[in-house]
Amino acid sequence: MCRLLLYKSNSPVLLADLLTRPAHSIIMQSFNCKLRVDLRRPMNGDGFGIGWYDEPRTAGCIFTSTLPAWGNLNLQRLAEKVKSRLVFAHVRATTGDTATSESNCHPWQFGNLMWMHNGNIAGFERIKRRLQNALRDEMYHSIQGTTDSEHAFALFLNMLDRPGERAEFSYAELRRAMLRTIAQLNEWLDEAGVEDISLLNFAVTDGQSVVCTRYITSADKEAASLFYSSGSEFKTDAESGQYRMSKANRREDVVVVASEPLTYERSDWLVIPTNTVLVVTPKMNVHLSPIKDKYWNPRRQ
Amino acid sequence: MCRLLLYKSNSPVLLADLLTRPAHSIIMQSFNCKLRVDLRRPMNGDGFGIGWYDEPRTAGCIFTSTLPAWGNLNLQRLAEKVKSRLVFAHVRATTGDTATSESNCHPWQFGNLMWMHNGNIAGFERIKRRLQNALRDEMYHSIQGTTDSEHAFALFLNMLDRPGERAEFSYAELRRAMLRTIAQLNEWLDEAGVEDISLLNFAVTDGQSVVCTRYITSADKEAASLFYSSGSEFKTDAESGQYRMSKANRREDVVVVASEPLTYERSDWLVIPTNTVLVVTPKMNVHLSPIKDKYWNPRRQ
Amino acid sequence: MCRLLLYKSNSPVLLADLLTRPAHSIIMQSFNCKLRVDLRRPMNGDGFGIGWYDEPRTAGCIFTSTLPAWGNLNLQRLAEKVKSRLVFAHVRATTGDTATSESNCHPWQFGNLMWMHNGNIAGFERIKRRLQNALRDEMYHSIQGTTDSEHAFALFLNMLDRPGERAEFSYAELRRAMLRTIAQLNEWLDEAGVEDISLLNFAVTDGQSVVCTRYITSADKEAASLFYSSGSEFKTDAESGQYRMSKANRREDVVVVASEPLTYERSDWLVIPTNTVLVVTPKMNVHLSPIKDKYWNPRRQ
Amino acid sequence: MCRLLLYKSNSPVLLADLLTRPAHSIIMQSFNCKLRVDLRRPMNGDGFGIGWYDEPRTAGCIFTSTLPAWGNLNLQRLAEKVKSRLVFAHVRATTGDTATSESNCHPWQFGNLMWMHNGNIAGFERIKRRLQNALRDEMYHSIQGTTDSEHAFALFLNMLDRPGERAEFSYAELRRAMLRTIAQLNEWLDEAGVEDISLLNFAVTDGQSVVCTRYITSADKEAASLFYSSGSEFKTDAESGQYRMSKANRREDVVVVASEPLTYERSDWLVIPTNTVLVVTPKMNVHLSPIKDKYWNPRRQ
Repeated sequence: MCRLLLYKSNSPVLLADLLTRPAHSIIMQSFNCKLRVDLRRPMNGDGFGIGWYDEPRTAGCIFTSTLPAWGNLNLQRLAEKVKSRLVFAHVRATTGDTATSESNCHPWQFGNLMWMHNGNIAGFERIKRRLQNALRDEMYHSIQGTTDSEHAFALFLNMLDRPGERAEFSYAELRRAMLRTIAQLNEWLDEAGVEDISLLNFAVTDGQSVVCTRYITSADKEAASLFYSSGSEFKTDAESGQYRMSKANRREDVVVVASEPLTYERSDWLVIPTNTVLVVTPKMNVHLSPIKDKYWNPRRQ
Repeated sequence: MCRLLLYKSNSPVLLADLLTRPAHSIIMQSFNCKLRVDLRRPMNGDGFGIGWYDEPRTAGCIFTSTLPAWGNLNLQRLAEKVKSRLVFAHVRATTGDTATSESNCHPWQFGNLMWMHNGNIAGFERIKRRLQNALRDEMYHSIQGTTDSEHAFALFLNMLDRPGERAEFSYAELRRAMLRTIAQLNEWLDEAGVEDISLLNFAVTDGQSVVCTRYITSADKEAASLFYSSGSEFKTDAESGQYRMSKANRREDVVVVASEPLTYERSDWLVIPTNTVLVVTPKMNVHLSPIKDKYWNPRRQ
Repeated sequence: MCRLLLYKSNSPVLLADLLTRPAHSIIMQSFNCKLRVDLRRPMNGDGFGIGWYDEPRTAGCIFTSTLPAWGNLNLQRLAEKVKSRLVFAHVRATTGDTATSESNCHPWQFGNLMWMHNGNIAGFERIKRRLQNALRDEMYHSIQGTTDSEHAFALFLNMLDRPGERAEFSYAELRRAMLRTIAQLNEWLDEAGVEDISLLNFAVTDGQSVVCTRYITSADKEAASLFYSSGSEFKTDAESGQYRMSKANRREDVVVVASEPLTYERSDWLVIPTNTVLVVTPKMNVHLSPIKDKYWNPRRQ
Repeated sequence: MCRLLLYKSNSPVLLADLLTRPAHSIIMQSFNCKLRVDLRRPMNGDGFGIGWYDEPRTAGCIFTSTLPAWGNLNLQRLAEKVKSRLVFAHVRATTGDTATSESNCHPWQFGNLMWMHNGNIAGFERIKRRLQNALRDEMYHSIQGTTDSEHAFALFLNMLDRPGERAEFSYAELRRAMLRTIAQLNEWLDEAGVEDISLLNFAVTDGQSVVCTRYITSADKEAASLFYSSGSEFKTDAESGQYRMSKANRREDVVVVASEPLTYERSDWLVIPTNTVLVVTPKMNVHLSPIKDKYWNPRRQ
């Protein structure tokens, strides 16, 4: 299982404050024993990636590594310098036989778009050819690695018009493409007779809007966890090394989405319901809407 | 341009003697200025790979790295310990946009087979889908990287019956599959209207026989260089650090194939004619035969 | 905290059977939650090293990496090929500000000797100059990294006569040098007024004999754990992926020393008492003797 | 032999324009055949480092790698984002037995100071202890690697008052410390009886001033080459990929110091005379002064 963090705010955050200095940093810490599933490997040992935007309407920047984050001096030095209003961060544990290589590290980017995934597409090898054959050349040739996650990004791009050439996208367009991506994957998985369950927590951004999903191909199981929090400032307590979300005023100046709550104030964090798409608009509004397909189950919420 | 070396002998060579100690080692040295084409990068800076077999009828072992060989302590220490009768070595310079990643380092292996390539398939992206769609699932899913070379290996494997399960192959079978691979690539390149020239110096082994080609998709140009030498012993002169092929007796106990002559005795080296397939049999016989397809040109030899 | 494993037997073990295939491999697995102390990092994420000997009276071979073992394809492929009668393995978690670099990975070697350390020298920076100044040039210049562990090895070497030139050492000589190393460190730590506690679990071998210590600079605390087991065969159960020590006959053909028991049969494992030196002789005899210095405390056992 | 580049300007340069995009980039290109000395390795294969400052009176940022620059995606992506008025860049070829490790990559930093070196201290191992023993604890413990260059930096720091705590230094103070560093090295080399020649092209900055030397421990030989150029703008011609220094007006808005001329206009470049110290003041004035010690030779200029 991997982990992801998505940060969007009106004022820039120093990457070090978000990622490298906190004692409970999502990319530096090891996982929480209590939530441990796989006994054979630590959660974040197979590499990490961070992506951030500095200026609007330009491509973001990505730093990935197959080395764990905590030994990466380049990352630690950079994080002390880089400020951003929109950050994606991902730690990775390989699933199955996927190689530990930089080509397989999240996030990926294409033009101004950036993508990451927490989960896996069950039986991916049974729909891989189909997916590749459905792609326009531009997306087909952009694929550098072997993961289901990168292929899902290519499929998402395939739902958009000229994704490599445009500086921005409306959030409605991104959300629509996201939902079509999930619908298409479901259709192919059904056709291939895959019965294992896929976990499709995807996140995408063009640097302005963010769209992410908490989704599972099941009508009764729980999706991989996903939480969000918003407030006036998200910072790290210097003494305890712990994150804290301030709510000094009514405005929402920061939105954080993460695969697990990052602060000890559990009340800061709202569970994103299973099979939901969440949008953070350029103006920092947060919309959640249910994904009402055949896996929709109002009682599960 | 890359470089390759292929060594087969009746008695084991210490990898250090072949690869790391010689002053003019194919993987440690930098390129020869005189043959330099691309002014922007040294020849062997994008990684290297070595493969070797220790016991008959078992899979070989591969050591690859995206770091240049000369700074690789693990390689240098290992090379002082490992002995082998059959060694593949490859240094790589990326072409185009191919990522420097371990998944893209030669040689590759599948079951007991090992493969490397010096050259490139022109317009590969125009036949990539076709190639992938022609592959049986086993080969399709074995691909870990993005290179034309690894895809050519998958196509070669596709020409064989159960390549992952068999301990050995007759050299005739390997040669036939090699020729069919080239013929199939040519057919697709023609259909796709690719007019640029491909350089297809391939080498494959099952640990017993070796088959390699010097081939170009042109009836008048020269293929990428390929030489071979044979004798009773291939060793390194301790003082000069240079390779030397001894011919102490009539027997051929060693065969070396390399993209450039490795010793100063130019007479030791025979040019493998353009568009030729060379076989080294398990008993160390060397057969050369012309590849008589539409690019065959008897006057070019 | 780090972890170490030391394996010595009369018949060679395939490294894969010892290190990479077992589900509970010391270098592939993550740490045991129950023993977890440091909540911020997984135990084995800062690199690993393995050392082994193939022939008597020759230097061993070392493979180290700052990447975790589980993503290291070169290691996994090599481990399927290499057999040895004497293996050192170490996984590392950095302490303090020590850089994650290959120069800082255990084991180290010098001539035919190999060394690793589990623990740390408290207040090392306060005795570092002194230690360096005491070294003969040969040892002083051999130091490539910054760790206390590598410096302790240099000090150990300094206690020996021509350590770089000799093919073998008597176990008595190695044990004597080990005890003098600890005594010297204690003397300097006292002079420097260091009161923090050092954990000095050292292991050294010349490829024939093994000497290791379980030691703490305290008369009442427990040293870092160290266990040993012996029997006729140490192997891995194919089904469960767990190690197992067989005791088919009276002979001791295998001795394993490890920082924690490796099999579920707790009765297989003997605790090495705190402040003890253990010797495995070339003939596989195991001797334990107490280190009777000022930290000796018979009641602690 | 290594290579260095030092860039200082009044307006920020995008690192990509300086370092990664130009066809003849100092860190991406391979060496020039004509100047080639060592036939066994390419010039820039043992790693590289870049350092830059973003804000005045703060520490710079450093990105180093043992992988060659041209395969480093993180570098290439970052260089498209980072702008700076003061950049240090260094490519490295190991000399002797020095390990290829990130600890051994230039530049180094300490507080707000940054340092790099092109050349080597001959017989360094014969003065290493002496140098280490002369250092105050703060500098002694800051050393992470094994190179002569990093030790020279520690010695330089030792000449300054509280180098780790101060935001800035006058250029006079930096120059004085630089000259004292060279004088001290000379004294020790003499005492140790080292007769081989040292090449001491050092560069240091606090983010405001730059001090660098072209120096050799010989009264008749030439030092390693060092050039400088100044003008109104240093940029890259998009078409040719070559650097160009514009001199649109009288002002000197850019100063570049490099181990070889970076543009084809040879007249743009002034040779820094052998055994000279060059200062670039915060206001972009350039001062050269001879180093009049026992190696001073007015006829050599």
